[in-house]
Amino acid sequence: MKAVGIIAEYNPFHNGHQYHIEEAKKNTNADVTIAAMSGNFTQRGEPTILDKWHRANEALHNGIDVVVELPLAFSVQPSHLFAQGALTILDALKVSDIVFGAEHSDWNFERLVRSEKNFDKNQFELYNETFATAFNEQLKQNTGIELTDPNDILAFSYFKAKKSIHASANLLPIKRIGNKYHDLEISGRFSSASSIRSSIANGSFDFVNSVPDITKKDLLNIKKLGTWENLYPYLRYTLIQSPVSELCGIYQMAEGLEYRMKSVAENASSFDEFIRELKTKRYTYSRLIRVSLYALLHITDGEMSEHYQTPYIRILGFNRRGQQYLHEIRKKLHMQAFTRLSRDQKVGVAQLDFRAGKMYQMINHSEQQDMKRKPIILL
Amino acid sequence: MKAVGIIAEYNPFHNGHQYHIEEAKKNTNADVTIAAMSGNFTQRGEPTILDKWHRANEALHNGIDVVVELPLAFSVQPSHLFAQGALTILDALKVSDIVFGAEHSDWNFERLVRSEKNFDKNQFELYNETFATAFNEQLKQNTGIELTDPNDILAFSYFKAKKSIHASANLLPIKRIGNKYHDLEISGRFSSASSIRSSIANGSFDFVNSVPDITKKDLLNIKKLGTWENLYPYLRYTLIQSPVSELCGIYQMAEGLEYRMKSVAENASSFDEFIRELKTKRYTYSRLIRVSLYALLHITDGEMSEHYQTPYIRILGFNRRGQQYLHEIRKKLHMQAFTRLSRDQKVGVAQLDFRAGKMYQMINHSEQQDMKRKPIILL
Repeated sequence: MKAVGIIAEYNPFHNGHQYHIEEAKKNTNADVTIAAMSGNFTQRGEPTILDKWHRANEALHNGIDVVVELPLAFSVQPSHLFAQGALTILDALKVSDIVFGAEHSDWNFERLVRSEKNFDKNQFELYNETFATAFNEQLKQNTGIELTDPNDILAFSYFKAKKSIHASANLLPIKRIGNKYHDLEISGRFSSASSIRSSIANGSFDFVNSVPDITKKDLLNIKKLGTWENLYPYLRYTLIQSPVSELCGIYQMAEGLEYRMKSVAENASSFDEFIRELKTKRYTYSRLIRVSLYALLHITDGEMSEHYQTPYIRILGFNRRGQQYLHEIRKKLHMQAFTRLSRDQKVGVAQLDFRAGKMYQMINHSEQQDMKRKPIILL
Repeated sequence: MKAVGIIAEYNPFHNGHQYHIEEAKKNTNADVTIAAMSGNFTQRGEPTILDKWHRANEALHNGIDVVVELPLAFSVQPSHLFAQGALTILDALKVSDIVFGAEHSDWNFERLVRSEKNFDKNQFELYNETFATAFNEQLKQNTGIELTDPNDILAFSYFKAKKSIHASANLLPIKRIGNKYHDLEISGRFSSASSIRSSIANGSFDFVNSVPDITKKDLLNIKKLGTWENLYPYLRYTLIQSPVSELCGIYQMAEGLEYRMKSVAENASSFDEFIRELKTKRYTYSRLIRVSLYALLHITDGEMSEHYQTPYIRILGFNRRGQQYLHEIRKKLHMQAFTRLSRDQKVGVAQLDFRAGKMYQMINHSEQQDMKRKPIILL
C-alpha cells in the first residue's frame, strides 16, 4: 500500500483540511493517509482549542486513516526542528510522499534552501534582529522572494529538513485554499483555523459552515477553552517561586531572559500583559510563547535534547485501511511504536507528553489525556 | 522601658488574645508589648485567614505596641525550630519577659525539659512512630504528665529553646482562657481561633461576639479565604511538572516522600483528598502540610538552612509607645532591622517572605504584601 503523510495541527479540523486531504490523495494516488498531528500544544506553544483525542477523531471521520501524535519535543519547536521531527516520524512510517499547503506552492523551495548556505550570519549578529528576519532580508535581496507567509516558511523548513536528515519521502507543496492563515474573519466554507478559534472565543456561531459536522459538535460542547489566559496563573506562580538558577536551565532560556520573565511576571496579571511586556526586538512572539510553555512544563535543556533524540510513534487512532497499513509495515518499523502509554513510558520516553497532557487537563477539565486511554478505532 | 514579648499568629485576633495581652502586662509590669507574629502562613503551614497587615493592625488596636513579622524560615517550622526562632527575635528586641498561654501553666516546664535528655531514641526507631508520640509515652511513664495539648507543647518548646540558644528573656506561661485550641464550636466571648475560622468558612456570623470590632470589620470584608484548597492547584501543578530530582531537594522531603507526593497529586483533585491519601503513621498532618508548603514555595534544604541562620527584624507596625521603645533600643540592636523591603532584601535575606507573600496574594487577591508597603503607624 502506498501512503501519503500530512503534517497537521487540526486546531480545529475544518473544511480546508478535508479539501487538503482529498488533494493529497489525488496528487499522489496514495491508498492510505497518515496525519502526524501535534498533541495538546501547537508549534507556537499555544494550547489547542480541543484536546488531541477530539482532533484525531475529527480527522479520522474526514479522510485520515491513521493519526499519530507528534511528540512534544518535536511539535513545540522552532520551525526547522519541528520540520525535522515531523519528517523523522513520517519517514519511519514509510510514507512515499508528504503533502503540505503553501501560500506559494509554485516556488522552487529546493533552490531557496540552497541559497541559505550563502546567508551571512554576521548581519544577524550586527543588527540584533531575529534570525528569520535577517535571513529574509538577504533572501529578498538575492532572489526577490519574500519568505513571510507562515506556510511558505514551513514548506521551506520541510525542504531544508529533508536535506539535513536525508529523509526519503517526496515533498509536495500544494496551493492552500480559502482565507489566509492569520485572517481573523470567517469567510464562508473555507475559513482559517485562526478565524474559527476567534469566532468561538467571541461566543459567535459564524464558524458552523466552515467545519465538518463532527467538529461542529465538538466545538459546541467545549466546557472550557484551552487558552494561555487559563495557563497563566501557573506560569506566573512558577516564575515567581523558582530561583533564577533553576529558570536559567529551561530550554531556550538565554541571555538573561529568566530575569526578565521573573520580573515581568511579578506585576503582569494577565498573559496578554505578560507577553506584551516581555516582547523585545530580539525575540519573536512565537519564541516567547514557546519559552513560556517550556518554563510552565519545567523542560530543561538537557531534557529536551534527550527527548529530541528519542523519537517514537504514538498512534492515536486508525480505521480499517489504516490498520491494514500499520500491519503491513509493522516488521519494517525501526522506531518504537505504541498505542497505549505504559508506566515506564510515562516517566521515560513519553514523559514530556504526559506532563503536557496533565497541564492541559488541569486547565480545561478535559478527560485524562494519556494514562488508560485506548486508541480510537473506527472499523 | 521594660518590654514584654508575645509570640502569636493572631489568626485572627480575638478577645482571648486581648485578654492575654492584658495579663502579660499585669504579670510583668511591662511598659511596652511586642508581638512576634507569623506572616501569611501559620506554624502548621496553613495560609492565614487574613493577611499579615490586617492582623498586625488588629493587634495594634488592641494592646500591642510593636508588631514584628516572624520570618517564614522561623514561623513555618516544627515547634522546636519555631520556638528557637521566635526567642531569637524577641531576645534581639531586648524584651525582659516572654509570656505565652499554656493549658497547664502550673507545670514545671524546666523540669520536663531536663527529663528529655533521658529520652530513649531507640524506642522511636523501633516503633516507627512520630518523635513526639514516642517522647510523650516515655514522659508519661516517667512523670505521669501527658504533653498533648498544643499550647503545652509550645510552652515546652520555648523552655527547651531558651536552654539551647541561651536566651536571656524570662519565660512566663499563663493559663489560657476560653475554649480549647481545637474546639470548633464558638463559645461566647472567648472562643478559639479555630472555631472563629470555621464559623467564617461556614458562612456563619456566630463569631462576632468573640472578636474586637476591628477584627469583625476585617472578617466581614474578606473577599476570598486564604485556604489550602485555593493553593492546591498550584501545588498539584508543581508536583506533577517537577522532576523527582528537583522535589527531593525540598526542605524536609525525606525517605522517598517526593515519589509519594507526586503520584498522589496526579489523581487527587482536592487538597483534602491529597493530604488524606498522603497520610501515613510515619508523618503527622502538620509535617505533611508544612512539606506541601515548602514544595509550593520551592524552598530547598540549602535555602532554608541559609535563611534560618540569617535572622532579621521586620517591623510591620507600631504606636507612639512602640516607637519610643524602638528608638531607645536602636543602638543596642545587634540584628538587622527594617520596616520596608528593599530590592536587595527581596532577592536576599527576605526572599522567602517575599515569595510567600506573592503566593498569598495570588490566591486571595489581597494587596501587594511586601514591596512598596509602609509599616502601620498609629500615633
